[in-house]
Amino acid sequence: MTQFGSPEDTARRDPSPAGPPVPRVDGVRLLEVLERLGEIGADPGGGVTRLGLGPLEEQARTWLAGVGRSAGLVPRTDPAGNLFLRLPGPATGPVLLIGSHVDTVVQGGRLDGAYGVVAAIEVLRVLHAGGVRLPFDPVAVAFSNEEGALVQLPFFGSRAVCGQLADRVGATDRSGRGADAYLAEHGGDPGRLAEAAWPEGSIAAYLELHIEQGPVLERAGIPIGVVEGIVGRTIVDIEVLGQAQHAGTTPMEARHDALVAAAELVLGVRRIAAVDGVCTTATVGFLRAAPNVTNTVPGTARLTAEVRDIDPARLAAGEAAVRAVCAEVERRTGCRVRCAVSSGSAPVATDPALRRAIAEAADALGLARLALPSGAGHDAQIVASVAPIGMIFVPSTGGISHAPAEDTPPEALVRGADVLLRTVLRLAATAGGDPGRGEGRVS
Amino acid sequence: MTQFGSPEDTARRDPSPAGPPVPRVDGVRLLEVLERLGEIGADPGGGVTRLGLGPLEEQARTWLAGVGRSAGLVPRTDPAGNLFLRLPGPATGPVLLIGSHVDTVVQGGRLDGAYGVVAAIEVLRVLHAGGVRLPFDPVAVAFSNEEGALVQLPFFGSRAVCGQLADRVGATDRSGRGADAYLAEHGGDPGRLAEAAWPEGSIAAYLELHIEQGPVLERAGIPIGVVEGIVGRTIVDIEVLGQAQHAGTTPMEARHDALVAAAELVLGVRRIAAVDGVCTTATVGFLRAAPNVTNTVPGTARLTAEVRDIDPARLAAGEAAVRAVCAEVERRTGCRVRCAVSSGSAPVATDPALRRAIAEAADALGLARLALPSGAGHDAQIVASVAPIGMIFVPSTGGISHAPAEDTPPEALVRGADVLLRTVLRLAATAGGDPGRGEGRVS
Repeated sequence: MTQFGSPEDTARRDPSPAGPPVPRVDGVRLLEVLERLGEIGADPGGGVTRLGLGPLEEQARTWLAGVGRSAGLVPRTDPAGNLFLRLPGPATGPVLLIGSHVDTVVQGGRLDGAYGVVAAIEVLRVLHAGGVRLPFDPVAVAFSNEEGALVQLPFFGSRAVCGQLADRVGATDRSGRGADAYLAEHGGDPGRLAEAAWPEGSIAAYLELHIEQGPVLERAGIPIGVVEGIVGRTIVDIEVLGQAQHAGTTPMEARHDALVAAAELVLGVRRIAAVDGVCTTATVGFLRAAPNVTNTVPGTARLTAEVRDIDPARLAAGEAAVRAVCAEVERRTGCRVRCAVSSGSAPVATDPALRRAIAEAADALGLARLALPSGAGHDAQIVASVAPIGMIFVPSTGGISHAPAEDTPPEALVRGADVLLRTVLRLAATAGGDPGRGEGRVS
Repeated sequence: MTQFGSPEDTARRDPSPAGPPVPRVDGVRLLEVLERLGEIGADPGGGVTRLGLGPLEEQARTWLAGVGRSAGLVPRTDPAGNLFLRLPGPATGPVLLIGSHVDTVVQGGRLDGAYGVVAAIEVLRVLHAGGVRLPFDPVAVAFSNEEGALVQLPFFGSRAVCGQLADRVGATDRSGRGADAYLAEHGGDPGRLAEAAWPEGSIAAYLELHIEQGPVLERAGIPIGVVEGIVGRTIVDIEVLGQAQHAGTTPMEARHDALVAAAELVLGVRRIAAVDGVCTTATVGFLRAAPNVTNTVPGTARLTAEVRDIDPARLAAGEAAVRAVCAEVERRTGCRVRCAVSSGSAPVATDPALRRAIAEAADALGLARLALPSGAGHDAQIVASVAPIGMIFVPSTGGISHAPAEDTPPEALVRGADVLLRTVLRLAATAGGDPGRGEGRVS
């Protein structure tokens, strides 16, 4: 091996007394790229609005391609608007995909997605600058439209790569403008969308570095999260049928108050996770009563209960518990309570070998680590359908995400990128050319 | 005394073996007038939409004036759109006002208000046909715009009569069209509105017959309600400040869920009346959470708690209990809970002498009676500021009101009108010319 890292960054190499120096990312460079990327779509209020498939996502992609090109990397954009950056020269073996997305929600933060892409590019820059040869071909990726904030099809880019978009290109924005129109205008090619799908087996593994978007790591004071998997999610739509009545003339015992029943449901759903521990989270995020006026006992209410867990059995138990709460509230309040699952996703596990490589990378850097699930969705859960996946989390200040206040301290960002780099190197050290087979491939 | 009632109705006179026959209303005529009045503004769906100050209220007024005129009564409309019908000839003494209103809510029922007006006219017809001379001057009234469904100033007509409208004539409909424009177009006179106010002391008493709008009489199987008073009402606006968080990434114990706190409030407010019996009713009719989407822990919620009671002390205790619930939920959930009284009305008592006259009238007719408060507002509560009031209730089928399904069996409607007539005669028998002083005037 030759020199790693940028010339001015020698102080950050591992001070290991024996053996060759181990490369570290250029933290100053990483943070600067992240900061300049955050200027694309910056909101006056401090956040970032850079919607997927829109002009600002394209601008971010074009700018990052330029950053990579000037560092000697080779950029490519596919018909779905995904940006790839690879090392120059012929491929060295199977592909290790590393990345995330650069789109945001409306008034989102500057880190969600962007951090993982910038860190992946930084990793490739370090590898390229050091002339490192790996037994696989590392490729940085910025998947398009992960959030689905503009055109309501989240995970657009990763679905396209995984061949899952064939029947979904009819998706539109709220005004009815189609994904195809956006693609045609902003550097994609709706007529060639099928070409965005990678051949089966061509992705050996996928690594994604991301902010946690929750408070667990920060509260525990631990810098690195080794993601066990992405939770599954079941959404139960609930309808309460009571009777609208005059709030002044209807005695309390003669009421069929749909909002009282809905309140029991809100508390009952919370109890499933908060008290009974049936599943990890259980939330009523939406509730609407009718007629919803001061002087009328509400006649109907609609609400959604969602449960999440990394374990399919616990996820199913959570759904069963929601149904049991509905039945109990119906029995107790005399209102009719109907419930039905409207949507959901299955839990996705990360690959044990990739988890181990991440853990060893953190250990080698002297960074405490915590195994935890991801409660939020990520491109990784899509890629999991075609390749083993691994995810690294860094703390989110206050657990805030999808908001202008979304933040992570600079040193924590640099640490996460170092763990990403070191994980790639560990995979190279243990793999026979395939990072997904490093120490035993997983389903 | 001479003959009472219509010639064909002799069978319905009291079968008292001793003393002269006592008059009864003409039930067929009463129901027919009520039915034909219900055709003015009839909805295809079965209800009635006859908005106050609008053309259909005027049409109803004009038609009722004609009904009265053809029966020998003398109609008059005042500048506020109130219709009065009196016996011909000079006034015999102080005025006993008897009536209600003929406007409805949107898609209301055919009885609310209308029944009381039609019954008052029927009472005058019976008195006139029988040539009865009373020691006071009975006047039937149809107050304008009691509901305030079109121009948002309920009790418009009764407020005008009581001299309470001077500073409120700026009221408009939702499009901004003023009460004055409606008055000018539909038989009132906005320039002479002050003339609608009656001189102090000119109304000796007011009687109002109304459907209950609640289920109490029907459930008890009792045909006549003697109204104790009209409940006071206090509305408390509540704001819950939690923190919007990601429903997947935020552990249950790290949440500040405004909807969970709001649900505790809904149940706590209900408990005030339903379990603790602090006041008669306590209702959360309105609740709105934000951002109110499936996958976000709600960050804020707004709701209204209203408490009602006939007793000012219990009303105040109800408000205090709402404040205590807010404080307890704030302490227990960690969300901030702010509350403030936004509006309300004081309880209004009916006059004991008028209550006694109503009770004796029911007793004389062999009708069971129940003393109960009115949970809804009525013109009577306005008139109470200038004169003693009495109210008679008849059952509402299913307790339904302000809806097309609002109903009361025909025989129950006739019974109520008979009690109204008999009450007037009792007041005449006991009063020294002033029905309000019949057996001791009340504050």
